[in-house]
Amino acid sequence: MRIAVLGTGPVGQTIAAKLAELGNDVTVGTRSVEDAMTRSEPDDFGNPPFPEWAQQHPQITVATLTDAASGAELVVNATNGAGSISALEAAGQGNLAGKVLIDIANPLEFSQGMPPSLFVANTDSLGEQIQRRFTDTRVVKTLNTMNAYLMVSPKQLGGGDHTVFLSGNDSDAKVEVTQLLESFGWSDIVDLGDITTCRGTEMYLPLWLRTMSSIEDPMVNLRVVR
Amino acid sequence: MRIAVLGTGPVGQTIAAKLAELGNDVTVGTRSVEDAMTRSEPDDFGNPPFPEWAQQHPQITVATLTDAASGAELVVNATNGAGSISALEAAGQGNLAGKVLIDIANPLEFSQGMPPSLFVANTDSLGEQIQRRFTDTRVVKTLNTMNAYLMVSPKQLGGGDHTVFLSGNDSDAKVEVTQLLESFGWSDIVDLGDITTCRGTEMYLPLWLRTMSSIEDPMVNLRVVR
Repeated sequence: MRIAVLGTGPVGQTIAAKLAELGNDVTVGTRSVEDAMTRSEPDDFGNPPFPEWAQQHPQITVATLTDAASGAELVVNATNGAGSISALEAAGQGNLAGKVLIDIANPLEFSQGMPPSLFVANTDSLGEQIQRRFTDTRVVKTLNTMNAYLMVSPKQLGGGDHTVFLSGNDSDAKVEVTQLLESFGWSDIVDLGDITTCRGTEMYLPLWLRTMSSIEDPMVNLRVVR
Repeated sequence: MRIAVLGTGPVGQTIAAKLAELGNDVTVGTRSVEDAMTRSEPDDFGNPPFPEWAQQHPQITVATLTDAASGAELVVNATNGAGSISALEAAGQGNLAGKVLIDIANPLEFSQGMPPSLFVANTDSLGEQIQRRFTDTRVVKTLNTMNAYLMVSPKQLGGGDHTVFLSGNDSDAKVEVTQLLESFGWSDIVDLGDITTCRGTEMYLPLWLRTMSSIEDPMVNLRVVR
């Protein structure tokens, strides 16, 4: 499948690499290919600069947001939450129309200091904002409740016996995303319901962050015990 | 230990019964003993009226909020979130001073319809509001992430292999509450940190509610897989 992964950060890189490894035709979309390909500093997390990653993944194309989205059958939003709507606008409403958009972004707000709060919560969510702005796109929120390594390789932790959630209005889109999650190794996939249910997974963020601090380990996820 | 459980609803009843069963001297506190003891209708959840429960638990005293709190060594807030601050004010700041207060309430807001949203979230929490209002009380937030049956009997589900969180500023109070949780059967107890960390457990509520709807079973809890 032709897949566009929007975002060049650690989440975008990890998802793009996994999708390519699984045999998909992957393009990473970025605001400026030139800027991305001339970065020479490690990112905020100490990861190598993007061009180094791109060189190690020659089968993955790097393109503008517009070109990546227009050529894709499925689009992944791995941009940071605060910039997601504008990145998707740059990708182009028409280029996203009718397509499944996997939204992984969280609405992190750093202006109040650490740990971050959320810039939208409780009676709305980033997933809903995106679905309202791009009405012809089939938004499925998922994978926003664990780190990038676990997203694409859940079996690394507890034999994979933990949970991923999904939210979205379109049943067929959720079936497609479920198959993709299964190809990553997920077996416990809980469909929470329509896109409003992603308020739950986005609002899980403070509990996730505090749990990581408490156990001093980023390799953590929830299992829904029932 | 002499324990006051404030609140006559299903959570208060279940916690009070368990604490009494474990040999504690338990008083249930309510705004009006007369009102509570003359109720003749089932509650909103279809549970029998309070006097029936009180009759089945003759070893548990029913008293005013003030009397319950003043006689107690430890106090449990099992009132509904919207009324918690005023119920604790009725219990009396002096009667709560120096004591451990286990806060189980969630800040549920029903004015926007179902499912409920939260009346405080993101940059503040009900647990923090209570701690700020009652500065001399040692507030420990816990047990607010599962139903009442699981709170007091975690081994009913998955052999007890799931998680309870706690948040609070006072380390000694958290040690005391941990022992109490262990006496209920909890083995995986995650101390998230100070009282601000209960934003996380309170904001978990939407995910909890949507997960229950999705799996159509209220007997559900999280396990922190690490």
